[in-house]
Amino acid sequence: MSFESMWDDLQPVGRSAATGGYRRFAWTREDHDLREWFAGECKRRGLDLTEDRMGNQWAWWGDPDEAVRRGAKGVVTGSHLDSVPDGGAFDGPLGVVSALAALDALRDKGFQPLRPVGVVNFVDEEGARFGVACAGSRVITGAMTAERARGLADAEGVTMADALAQAGRDPHDLGRDDETVGRIGAFVELHVEQGRGLVDLNHSVAVGSEIWPHGRWRLDFTGEANHAGTTRLEDRHDAMLGYAGAVLAARQAAVTHGCVATIGKVAVVPGGVNAIPSAVTGWLDARGADAEAVRRAVADVGALVERSGGRVVEESWTPSTAFDEDLATRLRTRLGGIPALGTGAGHDAGILANAGVPTAMLFVRNPTGVSHSPAEHAELADCLEGVVALTSVLEDLAGLVR
Amino acid sequence: MSFESMWDDLQPVGRSAATGGYRRFAWTREDHDLREWFAGECKRRGLDLTEDRMGNQWAWWGDPDEAVRRGAKGVVTGSHLDSVPDGGAFDGPLGVVSALAALDALRDKGFQPLRPVGVVNFVDEEGARFGVACAGSRVITGAMTAERARGLADAEGVTMADALAQAGRDPHDLGRDDETVGRIGAFVELHVEQGRGLVDLNHSVAVGSEIWPHGRWRLDFTGEANHAGTTRLEDRHDAMLGYAGAVLAARQAAVTHGCVATIGKVAVVPGGVNAIPSAVTGWLDARGADAEAVRRAVADVGALVERSGGRVVEESWTPSTAFDEDLATRLRTRLGGIPALGTGAGHDAGILANAGVPTAMLFVRNPTGVSHSPAEHAELADCLEGVVALTSVLEDLAGLVR
Repeated sequence: MSFESMWDDLQPVGRSAATGGYRRFAWTREDHDLREWFAGECKRRGLDLTEDRMGNQWAWWGDPDEAVRRGAKGVVTGSHLDSVPDGGAFDGPLGVVSALAALDALRDKGFQPLRPVGVVNFVDEEGARFGVACAGSRVITGAMTAERARGLADAEGVTMADALAQAGRDPHDLGRDDETVGRIGAFVELHVEQGRGLVDLNHSVAVGSEIWPHGRWRLDFTGEANHAGTTRLEDRHDAMLGYAGAVLAARQAAVTHGCVATIGKVAVVPGGVNAIPSAVTGWLDARGADAEAVRRAVADVGALVERSGGRVVEESWTPSTAFDEDLATRLRTRLGGIPALGTGAGHDAGILANAGVPTAMLFVRNPTGVSHSPAEHAELADCLEGVVALTSVLEDLAGLVR
Repeated sequence: MSFESMWDDLQPVGRSAATGGYRRFAWTREDHDLREWFAGECKRRGLDLTEDRMGNQWAWWGDPDEAVRRGAKGVVTGSHLDSVPDGGAFDGPLGVVSALAALDALRDKGFQPLRPVGVVNFVDEEGARFGVACAGSRVITGAMTAERARGLADAEGVTMADALAQAGRDPHDLGRDDETVGRIGAFVELHVEQGRGLVDLNHSVAVGSEIWPHGRWRLDFTGEANHAGTTRLEDRHDAMLGYAGAVLAARQAAVTHGCVATIGKVAVVPGGVNAIPSAVTGWLDARGADAEAVRRAVADVGALVERSGGRVVEESWTPSTAFDEDLATRLRTRLGGIPALGTGAGHDAGILANAGVPTAMLFVRNPTGVSHSPAEHAELADCLEGVVALTSVLEDLAGLVR
């Protein structure tokens, strides 16, 4: 299977005819189809497929446990297949398809790895359904407890535990998985770039240097449901007013402190045209190169929320993640001095790096810089250059005994 | 069936265990169950049940067509059984149950009407699903065209035409129904009060004087979907910012112009925590005693929306509705000089009044004034006083030959 034919296979899965965007959410029918596709591609290549305690899929060329017994660890690449609501085709799948294509290229040239090579499909990277990004890597590294993960609920009130059970899984299997993480000697995630850094630099591929500190906060505003026509202004407790103030405050705080802040999701109760809202919840996403600046911006928003009688709940916080310096240098040298780029986007690679796994990323040029949108794009020629770079990196790293 | 036992029958239908509120939306399973209940109550009483071209249910004691042939028209009472999202038990059902209980009381006392008496259950009064309130009465009076009604879509994109077809109905039957409207010589709708007017006046029942002018406007804001972490502030087109400004402007405009304005419903695309919104739609509900003041408030909001690059679409506008003065006087005299009250809430009675049908309303005291909320309430003693008042009014009006 060539890169292009794998890409074509994935095109229709979870694509909305109305928007052209993808809706591939954890533990849904679409997610199931993508997991089946991944399993099929691994089977076709004779790779050993295993699942860890979170359901992340790992396909191995070589026996990682035999390697561990002799004091070695594997080289792993891959990404995720889920999407944000109406997301693009590249964020996630490009890394998975490129991983399989790179493995094919190594085999085609008769390469014999000195340590096992793994390909991973992480579940629920976007957190689109249950609110916490990188749930798959967070749980197995212990960055999120199984208890918290099981209790996360989607917009319909379905918990992750319910969703797992409905997908035929046992939610009690969830948990930190040191055995799985212990097999990874190096992790390289290829990803479409989500800004215009490579366009400006006129390169097709870069090595990741760091992930900005980033977090998510839930902003809860409480009001009192009442009739929109018959309740006097002075008798109202309208939860939407505090929410609206927070949206504007978040933008202002980002300007003030030099970071980015976004409220892209909101839930209203009861949500009727003629009913005063009794509860409004907004989700704040804030990031920046400087963790202190992000903290200050969130504090500004929090102060306003509390003045409105609301409350702020931190759903996740990931400090600045510097990728492994030695590994990044090795990749850049191997790839002929290509540029290094930081990013404001979180990735499973960041979670693994924070768990002590030597980790690197490769970014592939995005001509518009647009991501998390149906307009997200990468040219085929750049994607194929990405595969060539990833193949070269894997050849280098799998040529080491440990 | 007593008032209390009918009330008990309705309690569980469409009630959310989570909120205690009702979710009874047009052409859903819950709506179907309520319609079946209404049909059963009418059959039990030997009333002739018919449906008009919108599916509103009419139950007749006596033959309205025979009456029309001799130049007379019937006396009709009733209300609706649908609800807003997480609405209360009384808004709508109190008028239907009281209508049946009043008819029982007339029969129990051996009253013989000189013209037919009808009980109606209007469909889709709240407009909770398709956005236009009083859809049932609007279509049969011609205040909304069948074409527009069929094309209205719910949050899932299901049109009213689709919903009707799924409910086993032919959407092409929809239309203005002069024959049905022509049978109504007088319409009296009993309704729970949605403010604290009767509490302040220390009365249990009032006669309606007028419905304030009221309308709904859709506010559409357009942005560009992009990654919340990687898109610089200066490159963003975030549709949420314009929306937030409009929420605050609506409250300010209501204060300025002396009316009420509410944004209680919002839809965001794509709606992901880490995606900049490409489209946000808010629904503005505005009302007041003075139509010009409402218009000025909406114009203030509209000016801000347009400065944000958004647009305003009027979904409905209902001018001030004065109920029939002679009929109101007759009711107040019959009921011993009870008070008259205006209201900011729209009703099917208002749509019929605007279509030229002599129309009156009776309001039953609401001890908290809260409505469109699970906390909506009326004491049983007040409800039974409402039934007594309605019985007396029907006896008076059905004792007239035409």
